[in-house]
Amino acid sequence: MSDPRLDTTRVIRATTGPEKTAKSWLTEAAKRMLMNNLDPDVAEHPQSLVVYGGIGRAARDWACFDKIVEVLDRLEDDQTLLVQSGKPVGVFPTHPDAPRVLIANSNLVPAWANWEHFNELDKKGLMMYGQMTAGSWIYIGSQGIVQGTYETFVAMAKQHFNGNASGKWILTGGLGGMGGAQPLAGTMAGFHMIACEVDESRIDFRLRTGYVDVKATSLDQALALLEQAKASGKPTSIGLLANAADVFAELVQRNIIPDVVTDQTSAHDPLNGYLPQGWSMSEAAERRLQSPEQVVKAAKQSMAVQVQATLDMQSKGAVAVDYGNNIRQMAQDEGVQNAFDYPGFVPAYIRPLFCEGVGPFRWVALSGDPDDIYKTDQKVKELIPDNPQLHHWLDMAREKIHFQGLPARICWIGLKDRARIALAFNEMVKSGELKAPIVIGRDHLDSGSVASPNRETEAMLDGSDAVSDWPLLNALLNTAGGASWVSLHHGGGVGMGYSQHSGVVIVADGTEAAAKRLGRVLWNDPGTGVMRHADAGYDIAKNCAREQGLDLPMLSTKE
Amino acid sequence: MSDPRLDTTRVIRATTGPEKTAKSWLTEAAKRMLMNNLDPDVAEHPQSLVVYGGIGRAARDWACFDKIVEVLDRLEDDQTLLVQSGKPVGVFPTHPDAPRVLIANSNLVPAWANWEHFNELDKKGLMMYGQMTAGSWIYIGSQGIVQGTYETFVAMAKQHFNGNASGKWILTGGLGGMGGAQPLAGTMAGFHMIACEVDESRIDFRLRTGYVDVKATSLDQALALLEQAKASGKPTSIGLLANAADVFAELVQRNIIPDVVTDQTSAHDPLNGYLPQGWSMSEAAERRLQSPEQVVKAAKQSMAVQVQATLDMQSKGAVAVDYGNNIRQMAQDEGVQNAFDYPGFVPAYIRPLFCEGVGPFRWVALSGDPDDIYKTDQKVKELIPDNPQLHHWLDMAREKIHFQGLPARICWIGLKDRARIALAFNEMVKSGELKAPIVIGRDHLDSGSVASPNRETEAMLDGSDAVSDWPLLNALLNTAGGASWVSLHHGGGVGMGYSQHSGVVIVADGTEAAAKRLGRVLWNDPGTGVMRHADAGYDIAKNCAREQGLDLPMLSTKE
Ligand SMILES: NC(=O)c1ccc[n+]([C@@H]2O[C@H](COP(=O)([O-])OP(=O)(O)OC[C@H]3O[C@@H](n4cnc5c(N)ncnc54)[C@H](O)[C@@H]3O)[C@@H](O)[C@H]2O)c1
Ligand SMILES: NC(=O)c1ccc[n+]([C@@H]2O[C@H](COP(=O)([O-])OP(=O)(O)OC[C@H]3O[C@@H](n4cnc5c(N)ncnc54)[C@H](O)[C@@H]3O)[C@@H](O)[C@H]2O)c1
Repeated sequence: MSDPRLDTTRVIRATTGPEKTAKSWLTEAAKRMLMNNLDPDVAEHPQSLVVYGGIGRAARDWACFDKIVEVLDRLEDDQTLLVQSGKPVGVFPTHPDAPRVLIANSNLVPAWANWEHFNELDKKGLMMYGQMTAGSWIYIGSQGIVQGTYETFVAMAKQHFNGNASGKWILTGGLGGMGGAQPLAGTMAGFHMIACEVDESRIDFRLRTGYVDVKATSLDQALALLEQAKASGKPTSIGLLANAADVFAELVQRNIIPDVVTDQTSAHDPLNGYLPQGWSMSEAAERRLQSPEQVVKAAKQSMAVQVQATLDMQSKGAVAVDYGNNIRQMAQDEGVQNAFDYPGFVPAYIRPLFCEGVGPFRWVALSGDPDDIYKTDQKVKELIPDNPQLHHWLDMAREKIHFQGLPARICWIGLKDRARIALAFNEMVKSGELKAPIVIGRDHLDSGSVASPNRETEAMLDGSDAVSDWPLLNALLNTAGGASWVSLHHGGGVGMGYSQHSGVVIVADGTEAAAKRLGRVLWNDPGTGVMRHADAGYDIAKNCAREQGLDLPMLSTKE
Repeated sequence: MSDPRLDTTRVIRATTGPEKTAKSWLTEAAKRMLMNNLDPDVAEHPQSLVVYGGIGRAARDWACFDKIVEVLDRLEDDQTLLVQSGKPVGVFPTHPDAPRVLIANSNLVPAWANWEHFNELDKKGLMMYGQMTAGSWIYIGSQGIVQGTYETFVAMAKQHFNGNASGKWILTGGLGGMGGAQPLAGTMAGFHMIACEVDESRIDFRLRTGYVDVKATSLDQALALLEQAKASGKPTSIGLLANAADVFAELVQRNIIPDVVTDQTSAHDPLNGYLPQGWSMSEAAERRLQSPEQVVKAAKQSMAVQVQATLDMQSKGAVAVDYGNNIRQMAQDEGVQNAFDYPGFVPAYIRPLFCEGVGPFRWVALSGDPDDIYKTDQKVKELIPDNPQLHHWLDMAREKIHFQGLPARICWIGLKDRARIALAFNEMVKSGELKAPIVIGRDHLDSGSVASPNRETEAMLDGSDAVSDWPLLNALLNTAGGASWVSLHHGGGVGMGYSQHSGVVIVADGTEAAAKRLGRVLWNDPGTGVMRHADAGYDIAKNCAREQGLDLPMLSTKE
C-alpha cells in the first residue's frame, strides 16, 4: 500500500487575489492559509505534508487535506468544521459569530502522553503532530521566528554586553524551519555566528534566501571565517556542515569558548529531529523505520554530549541559553544531572514582554500582493509612533526578509496595541486600500496561550509552571469571542508530554461584523496573557492590567 | 492562619423562585447551580466546598466562591467570566450567544499530571480538583448516578442472567456521593446487595434517604440478612460497616462467591479516598496531614488485596466489573499484574449506548418546585412514547428518589432526542407552564465528552483510547454553539493523569434566542459522541450518524 501521507506529484500554493470560491472570506482564508502552510517556499517537506519542526503537519494525510479544502468551500457561515489531528471529522451548526473551524491536534490523556504512544497512534493513522502553527494553519516561514529570535538576541546584548554585540559570536546548532532564522536575526542584532547543521540542503537553502552569509565544511574553515569576520567588523553568519554535538565537544576540547551558546536542533523529537553523532542522514532515515528505539537512545546520548559541552562553555564564561527545544530534559534523562543549570530563553529574556501581552502578532495578505504588507507596515508605524525598535525592525524586515508564500509580517506587540492595529487593518480592507482581506494570528508561543514548563512557563514566580488551565481558557475564550479558527495542541516545541497550547486566527474582511469580532478577540487574547502573569504575581502584569482596565476579579483583593 | 477553604459558619442553599438578582437567567442559573452544588443536602462536605468524589470542589476557596457569586450578579449579557480551578480570574467582552462562564479545572501539562504535583499546587492554593460535575456546577446528588448504575445493572442482568436478577446478589464497596446510589439502583434492577462502607455516617445517610434498606455491623450479620432476603424474594440492600478489602478477602477465604462483584470506593484518589486495612478513619485523617506518602502506599496495598480477591471471585464464576474508580490501575502499580483481567463497565455495558449519543442527560428546576419536574417527566413520556424502560425509570424515580437541593431529573437519552426534549422544555417555560427556567446539562461521563482509557474509553475498537482531541473539540464546539457554561477538566473519576473531559450546561429561559442555542448545542453535544464512536469504527454509531443525518465528512469515503 502506498503511504497516504506522501504524494510527490502534489505542489500546493495558496490561491491569491480578491476572488474567492468559498462562501465567505473566513473559510476562504482558512483554505488559503492551509494551502500556504504547504507551499514549497514555506514548508520543509510539503509533499509529506510536513510544515516545520520535525514532523509538524498541516493535515493528517492527503485524503484529509483534499476533504478539508472541499468542506471549506461548501461551509455555510452558520456552520463549523471540526478537525481532529488533521482530519476533518464533523460539520456542525453554529452561528455567524462562531469560529468556522475548531481544531484539536496531538492531544493525549497525560498518562499516555509520550512519544512511544503517539508514534504508535500516528503510525495507525489516528493522529498527527501539529507542532504549533503547522496544524493550525498560521505558519509563515522563517520570518515568523526571525523577530522572536532578534528580540531575544537584542535583549541578550543589552543584558550581557552593554547593548553592543560587535565582535561577539554565537555558537548554535540547527538551521531548520525555525532554527534557520538564527543567523539572520543574529547578524541583525550585531553578532557573528557559527551554526552547525548536518543537512547541507538546509544550509544551501538559507544561503539562497540570504539568511546565512557563508558556508563552511569543516570546523577549521569555520573558525578561519570567523576570524576574518571579526577583523572586518561586519556581523557575519557561518553555516557549518557538521554535527552540533561533535563541534560543541571539540570546541571545549580546544578551549575555544563562544560569547553565547545555544541550540535549535529538533531535540524535542529524538526519533526524527536529531542526528546522532557518527551517523549519516541516510543511515538515520533507514534506522528510524527499522529500530526506532535505538535511534531515540543514540540521539539522546549525543544530546547529552552537546549539553555537557554547553555547560562546560558556560562555566568558562559563555552565556548559555536553551532555545526551547527541550534538549536539557533529554540530556537529563541520559544522566546530565545539572542540565537545567542554564536557563531557558523565556524566563531570561521574554517573560517581561509576556507580562504586557507582548508576543508574536502576525498578519498575512490574502491578495498575495507584497504592497498590501508594505501598506500595513506603514500603518503600524503611524499608529505606534513612539517605538524606534519596532520601526527599525519593520525597516530591516522589508529590506532583508524575502516573503515565503503569501506575503506576511510579524511584529511583537501587546495588549494595548493588538486590537487597535487589527481594526485599522480592517478599515484598510473596507476602504479598498488593501486588495483583499488580511488574516491575523500569532504563534502558540505567546503570553496567554501556552503551558510549557521547560520553555514558555519555566520558573513562573508562583510555581504554576505546569498549570494548563490557562491555555485551555484562552482557546475557549477565543472561541466565545468569535475568532475565525481556534486550535488546541499538545506537545509543540518541546515534544509529547511537555506542553499544551492554543492558537487563534481571525480574518479582517472589512465588514462591521469582523470589526466587532476583531475588537473582542484581539483584546481578549493578549488579555489572557496579562491575566495569567498577573495571577502568578508579576508586577509588570498587574500594572499593565490596571493601566489597561482589564477586569480581573481577584486582583484588587489580592494586594 | 485559618484555612481559606473551611468555614463552619456557612450554609449555602440556592435561591429559588421566579425572581432573579443577576442580570439574566443564564447568570442567575450559574449562580444557583453553584450554590446548589454546596447545599448540605447535596454536597458531601459543603463547608469545605467539597461536593463529591473525594475532594471534588465547587470553588477554590470561600473568597473565590463569594467573588464568583458577586461577578455573576454583575455580569452583562455580552461578558464572559473565566474560572481557573475554582477561581474567578477574568471577565472579558464576548456576545449574547457566547457562554457566560468558561471553566478550566485541574488541568496539568502531562509530564506533571500526577497527584504529587497536583497536591503541591493545591496546597499552595493554585489549583482545585474539579472532579466532573463538582467544579462545573451540575452535580445533582445521588440521583445523577442512580440511573447510570441502574442502566448498568439492568444490562448486566440481561447479559448474564437472562434478564432476571431475582435471587442474585452484588458485592461492592463504597457508599459515598456516587457509590451510595448502588444499593437503590441494584434493588430497582432486582438484585440483592452487600455494600461495604467504613464510614458509618454514610450508611446512616443512605438509610435515611431510602437508598439502603438495612445496616449490618459484621460480615456474619450481613450474610444472615442476605439469606433472609433471598428467602423472602424481595430485593434487599445491606450496608455493611466494614473495610471492603477485609470483606472481599474474607469471602474468598470462606469460599462465598457473589454473583456480581464491583467497587465504588474513591480508589482513584489513594490519599483521600480509600481507607487502608486496619486503620481507623481518624487515624487516617491525621496521617494524611503528617505522612501522605505512607497513606498512599498503605491504601494502594489494600486495594491490591481487594482487587486480588475480586479476581479470585471472578475465577470462581462471579461477574466482575470495574466501576470506573481506577482501582485496577492502583492494584497493578502494587504488583497485581493481571488486574485488568476484568473489564470496565463502559466497554462491557455502556458503549453501545454511547454510540447513539445516549448518556446522562439531566435537568434542574430553578423554581425549586418539584411540580416543575413532574411536569417535565410527563412531557418526556409524551415525546418518547415507545420506550417502556424509560417510562419505568421515570415512574420509579418519582416514587423512590428524594430530591436533594433543587429538584432535578436525569434520564439517558441520545442524539435523536436531546434537542427535541430541550426545546419542549423551553416552550413550557415560555408558556408559563413551568414556574421558572430549566437548567439542562449532563455528566462529563458522556458519549463525546471524555477521554479516559481506564474507564469511558477503555478498549476502543481502533485503539484510540488515549486520544483526547475529542473532549477538547466537544468543549470548543459547545462554546461555539452558545452553551451557558462550558468546562474542561482533568483527572475526574479516575484521578490525575488518567482522564480529560468536558462539561456543558445550557439554560432554557423560554426565549427565542435560547431555543436557537438549545437546538444547536443539544444536537452538537451528543453529535460529537456519535462522531467519535463512528470514527473509531463502531457500526452502531455509523448507522446512527447516517440515520440522523450527521455531517461527518470522512465517513462515506471510509466504507
Ligand atoms: N521560540 C522557540 O521556543 C523556538 C524557536 C525556534 C525553534 N524552537 C525549537 O527548536 C527546534 C528546531 O525547530 P525547527 O523548526 O528549526 O526544526 P527542524 O526540524 O526544521 O530543524 C532542525 C534542524 O536540526 C538539524 N539537526 C538535527 N540534528 C542535528 C545535529 N546533531 N547537529 C546539527 N544539526 C542537526 C536538522 O538537520 C534540521 O535541519 C524545535 O525543537 C523547536 O521547537 C523553539
Ligand atoms: N460512572 C462512573 O464511572 C462512576 C460512578 C460512580 C463512581 N465512580 C467512581 O467511584 C468512586 C466513588 O465515588 P464517590 O463519589 O462515591 O466517592 P466518595 O469519596 O464520596 O465515596 C467513597 C466512599 O468509599 C468509602 N471507603 C473508602 N475506603 C473504603 C474501604 N477501604 N472500604 C469501604 N469503604 C471505603 C468512603 O468512606 C466513602 O464513603 C470514585 O472513584 C468515582 O470516580 C465512577
